[in-house]
Order: sequence, then C-alpha cells, then structure tokens
Amino acid sequence: MTSWLTIPADSDFSIYNLPFGIFSTAQQPEPRVGVAVGNQILDLAFAADMAVFDAFLPYKQRDVFRRNYLNDFIRLGRPVWQQVRRALQTELTSDNSLLHGLADEAFVSQAEAIMHLPVQIGDYTDFYSSIDHASNVGAMFRDPANALLPNWRHLPVGYHGRASSVVVSGTAIKRPNGQRLPKGETQPVFGQSQRLDFELETAFIVGKDTELGTSLTTADFDEHVFGMVMFNDWSARDIQQWEYVPLGPFLGKSFGSSMSPWVVTMEALAPFRVAGYVQEPAPLPYLSETSLVPNLDIQLEVSLTPANGTADSKETIISRSNQRFLYWSQAQQLAHHTINGCNVRVGDLIASGTISGPDRSAWGSLLELCWGGAEPITLSTGETRTFLQDGDTVTFRGYAEKEGIRVGFGTVSGQIVS
Amino acid sequence: MTSWLTIPADSDFSIYNLPFGIFSTAQQPEPRVGVAVGNQILDLAFAADMAVFDAFLPYKQRDVFRRNYLNDFIRLGRPVWQQVRRALQTELTSDNSLLHGLADEAFVSQAEAIMHLPVQIGDYTDFYSSIDHASNVGAMFRDPANALLPNWRHLPVGYHGRASSVVVSGTAIKRPNGQRLPKGETQPVFGQSQRLDFELETAFIVGKDTELGTSLTTADFDEHVFGMVMFNDWSARDIQQWEYVPLGPFLGKSFGSSMSPWVVTMEALAPFRVAGYVQEPAPLPYLSETSLVPNLDIQLEVSLTPANGTADSKETIISRSNQRFLYWSQAQQLAHHTINGCNVRVGDLIASGTISGPDRSAWGSLLELCWGGAEPITLSTGETRTFLQDGDTVTFRGYAEKEGIRVGFGTVSGQIVS
Repeated sequence: MTSWLTIPADSDFSIYNLPFGIFSTAQQPEPRVGVAVGNQILDLAFAADMAVFDAFLPYKQRDVFRRNYLNDFIRLGRPVWQQVRRALQTELTSDNSLLHGLADEAFVSQAEAIMHLPVQIGDYTDFYSSIDHASNVGAMFRDPANALLPNWRHLPVGYHGRASSVVVSGTAIKRPNGQRLPKGETQPVFGQSQRLDFELETAFIVGKDTELGTSLTTADFDEHVFGMVMFNDWSARDIQQWEYVPLGPFLGKSFGSSMSPWVVTMEALAPFRVAGYVQEPAPLPYLSETSLVPNLDIQLEVSLTPANGTADSKETIISRSNQRFLYWSQAQQLAHHTINGCNVRVGDLIASGTISGPDRSAWGSLLELCWGGAEPITLSTGETRTFLQDGDTVTFRGYAEKEGIRVGFGTVSGQIVS
Repeated sequence: MTSWLTIPADSDFSIYNLPFGIFSTAQQPEPRVGVAVGNQILDLAFAADMAVFDAFLPYKQRDVFRRNYLNDFIRLGRPVWQQVRRALQTELTSDNSLLHGLADEAFVSQAEAIMHLPVQIGDYTDFYSSIDHASNVGAMFRDPANALLPNWRHLPVGYHGRASSVVVSGTAIKRPNGQRLPKGETQPVFGQSQRLDFELETAFIVGKDTELGTSLTTADFDEHVFGMVMFNDWSARDIQQWEYVPLGPFLGKSFGSSMSPWVVTMEALAPFRVAGYVQEPAPLPYLSETSLVPNLDIQLEVSLTPANGTADSKETIISRSNQRFLYWSQAQQLAHHTINGCNVRVGDLIASGTISGPDRSAWGSLLELCWGGAEPITLSTGETRTFLQDGDTVTFRGYAEKEGIRVGFGTVSGQIVS
C-alpha cells in the first residue's frame, strides 16, 4: 500500500498501523478521536462528518468520534473497528480519496496536538508473566535456587492495580512519599522513596463487555480485545518491599502509571504473531492455546535521559527487550482472569508485568539491571544510576517490523519530579 | 424529631438516618435517587420536581436525582449533602410539609422497589484493618507466636480489589472455578472452589476528587467521604491460598463482592463516634488522628440461611461483631491511601477488610469461625458448616443505636449458586 500522504519510511505510524488515540489542539480544544499516520493525526470526527464511514456507520453512531475517550467507539465492536480501519486505508491510498482534497482540515500535525489518556479505564490488572523477570526478582529477594514460586508455572500470576492514577505519556511523575524500612532497622521511617524504578510493560485494552459469572477461552481473545499500548508501571521499591506482605503491591505502585497515547489494534499487530516459550509443565486445559503463534514479536526499548546531560549525550538506551519474552500469552491472561467468572468491561487495561529477556541487556527494570542497587549502570553522560533521580526522563519505544512493514507504538515517557 | 410518616420504632431507616440509594419500580423502570425512611423510599427526583430543594439547588442541578448512580449528586459536595438531608428532615417532620400532601406520589414501598448498585465505583480498595482478624489468619497460616507481620502495626495494609464485580445486595453469587492445590499435592487441580467464604466488612465511599500528587490528612476525612455501606467480600479460600504469593489476592476474590443498596451518610453516623483500640507503637505522624473518637460503634451481624432449612429454623446468627473493633480508622486508611500522591475519585469504594472482634463470637469469616475448616459450626437447622454450600444465603446487618436513636444499614445479602 502506498499513500498520497507523506509517511516517513521509518515511521511507527505506517499505513499498516493506524492506531487510535484522543487528541485536541489549541485551536480546537474539544478532545476527539484521531488516527496517527506518519507525522500527522487524521481527525476522525471530521472524517465522519465528511461521510467517510457512511457505508457502514449509522448516522447516530458518528458522534462516537467526538468523545473524551475511545470507549464508545470500541463498544461498537470488532466488525466496526475493522471497517473503519479498511475505510481509512482505502482513503489514504486511493486516487479518488475524499480526504485528499480536504487534507488541510482533516489532518493535524502531531507536533501541534495535545494527546489525552485514550481510554476510560474500568479496572487495571497487572500480570507478572515474564519468566526472566520473575526469576530475577525471586533470585534477588528469595532464593536463586528456587527463584520461581510453586504457582508460577501453573498460572499467570496477577493482581489488581490502581486505575485512577494511570496517566498519559508526558505527564510528570512525582516522587512518592511513604514508609520504608531501612536495612537492618526494625522501625520504618517516612520520606520520599529512595528506590524509584520503572517497569517495562505493554498492556492490552478490553474491547467487549462480558457478564459476571461467565468465562472467556483463549480462542475468544481476538473478538474481545481492541488493541495494545506501551505501559510504564513506575515502582517505588522501598515502599513496595515494606508494604507488600501479605496482600501485594499497593502504594509502591499507585502513585502513577504511564500509558502511550496511541492504541495499536490487534489487527495491525496480527502479522507479527510468533510462538512463545515452551510451557513446561503443560498448563491446565482452560489455559491451553488454540493458536500456534500466541505471542508477538514486538521490539521494546528503554531509554534514560538525565536532566543535566548535554544535548548530544542525553539519552542512553539501557534495555532492549521484546514482547515475545512473555511466558504467559495475553490470551492466557484473559482466560485466566475470567475463569472464576470475573467480568471484564470495555476499557479495562490488562498489563503484562515487566518484560525481561534472558540476557541482562533485555532486563526491564532498574531493580534487575542494577541487581537491587548493587551494580550501577553508566549512562552516556558518564553519570551512573541504581535507581531514578529527580529530573530523569524514562522513555519506552516499541515496534514490530517485518518485510518492510513497520507497526509501532511511538513512545511512552515520563519525567521524575520531586 | 417526629415524622408524620409512620416509621417503625425499630427501623434502621429512622428520621435520623436518611440513607441514599438508587431504585426503580416495575411501573417506573428508570433508576433514580431515593432515600429510605421506615419501610418507604422517598423519590428524590419527584421531590426535586416539587421544588423541595429549590432554596439551595439551582434548577439545572435538580436532575442529579435522575441518574443510574449517586455519583453526580455526591459530586455537588458536602454542603449540598447536608442541605438535602436537612430539607428532608424538615419536610418529614413539619406540619406544613409539601410532601405530606403528595405522599402517594412521593413514596414507594421498599417491598415494591428494585434496588440498584448505588455508586459507579472508580477504584475499589480493600484494607486489612482488624487486628483480631489479621491475628487469626496469621496464627492459622503462619505462626501463632508471630501472627502479625512486621509491617502490620505500622501501616494499614491494603490492596486493590476488582471494581467490575461489585454487585448490589440480592445478586446471586456463582461458585467460582479455579486452580487449587490439594493438601499434600504438588500439582494443582481445576474445579469449583471447595472453600467458599464470606468476609464481614463495611466500606466508605469517597465524596470528593483529589488531584494526582496530593495527599489527604486524617482531618480531611469528613469533607472527602460521603457515606458507608455494608460489604461482603466473598472469598474462595482454596483459590486464594494457591494464587496469592507474591502479589496478593486476585481470582480468589474477584468473582463477586456484595454491597448494601443504602449509603448511610457520615453525618448520620457522627453521633456514634467512639475511640478505637490504643495503637502501639504510635503510628508515624502522617497517620496521627486529630479526632479523639475516630472509630464508630456500629453493631454488625452475620446470618447464614441454608436452602433446605425449615421455615422457622432457617436463619442462624453466626457472628456478632462491631465496627469499633477496627484497629486502623477509616481516616487513617484514607490518609495512608493518598500519602504517596495516589488520587481518589467520587465513588471510590474503600473497604475495611474483615472485621473480627476479640471473642470467637465476633469473628467475621467462616475461615476463622471454623478455624480453617477444623471446627465446624452448627446451624439452627442442625446442619453443620465449615465453608459455604450451594443454596446458602449469607446476610449481614449493621446498625448504630444510642439514646433511642437508631441508624442502620438494612442488609446486604447473597445466595451461593452453582
């Protein structure tokens, strides 16, 4: 496919991608649905007004694009997501495109747009599905010989996260206060976290409500999931370490989590499906895969930019991981999540947990990269880090690429402020 | 205060109470805001139309009573909650009452009403604030000599729960499927939970949004909290036991939680404030209380009704506890929850955790009452129970009473179905 629109060859937002987001501009401050193409955003509210979707979208549904969140559009269901996607690909490649002549009104430069949180999140769930990450953490905090707990290979361990504090990329993250137990002490102290970390994650967004008391199988995944985002589950390790027994992480995480503004559809990612790790022992039947390629080959990258770096040495890539390193697939996560009858709703956010690979270069948190603070990393500025300092900006990038086709997420980024 | 309306002397819904809920009727199926008085429900949408709130409520705010949830009413803020309450008390006691003459239209019998979930819950948090409960569980699963974990007396331990599966009283609860590890085995099995339990809890509902990055103190509680409900955090102990390390409860809880339909305002509960347990060691300053009476004297009661009991022997009271047995107060829970900058939103549900008292008769779960299944309880039907069976109905009641004034919650009830 070739578009009449100029799309840089290395753009995350190729004609094969077309991710959805919510944007506004200074001139037109009402948030609305947009699609990223190259360096532009296509205004879907405008496109709908221009009758681009009239072949399949009833008149009264057109206003789903004039919303603060994608939820109402998502609620229209998978056939409509696919029809919109195809209509846009036709529009963007056709010589007879209606939008071609209206490009001045239909497109906004990404540089001029304000991006908003794309979905209204009902519940946010965080899994713990990377075997290399779980092994690293287990080795550090428990026992290297028995790094994985007995349940880990039998079920995708997960927990409920805080939905209210999920923010869009670019939002500053305030270093949290809290209790921590200094090493060797028996009484906790209060103050700002000293061990602030990121977690390299992705997340998927539920596309269809289910009823309480019903369950989904791994085969239901495609119909029930809208798309994916990059996700940073910021973590205060000292707060977490003191509070987390016996009920799990709470304030060590709930001060903020960052989401990329563009939701890449599962349809755009379908060409990048790959096999995952061999699961041994074989999981119980309700977790069995119908797909031979339940995982995704998405390259993930973490960079750290200190506030005081020089212009040309500021950003250091500190990790390169991949979505395919997940042991438990997203379809298995969804099947497990609902096996007890728990209902899911449009806009629910289901995150992967930190995605680490087998090699140190692919570890997805400072906790791992610096082995609990014992082994600092060196940045291109010459500075070292064990945990994040005020002013540090952490940026994740993610993209899939194959046979000249690139489908990417752009970035999710956040700066630590005091 | 004496009302022209007939209110039974032992009613939970005295003129001093006036709890808010969402109801509909077969004749008028649109959900709307109501207030329970005696055996009746006062229709606030109708009252607003009759200009009962005109002295303080602008015309365009009147429609907050024509909603599926209380959230928009709550969002108007504490002064409005108080004004509505006082206007209703005046209306219900005055000889010149406008509603008196319109009683046929203004009131609906509770027996004829359908009650709905009262609030749209943003996030649901569950604390673990009863020292007797935490000690019982710690003694059973870990070590009686060190029943409380080191953090327990320093902070109100809590975790995020699942909001989507919170249902209103009367909704049947389906026995969940899941993985469990049979005793002595190393491989999990799949099937219906064999150790289904209730948890006697109360919860408060946030009444005011906060900004991410800000914190509340214990003194902010009154302005930021709308009211309380009774709450049953149903728990599948076998699923929970296998899954919960290291990230806490997940599928062992997320299959359903039941909430009472009536939200009792903090103002109605204010006369029942009492001192709590002495906290030793003294908590860190951010958790210190400004109130000498941070706790509440609310009697709590659990009954179990088997499906096959005879008419006169069906219901057995199996526990009598009290809100005052909470070690960590609600104000401390809210201060702790936000100390890391986590924002709260109108409609957030913050639950107490199981409320057990020091005596066995006051323990708030079957896990405790039957000591992990080792010591069955006997019901008035002659049957015994360790955990819940299909057909069992669990009902919680809660009320405060002092000097002839009674303020109660009614019931929260649910039946287990297969």
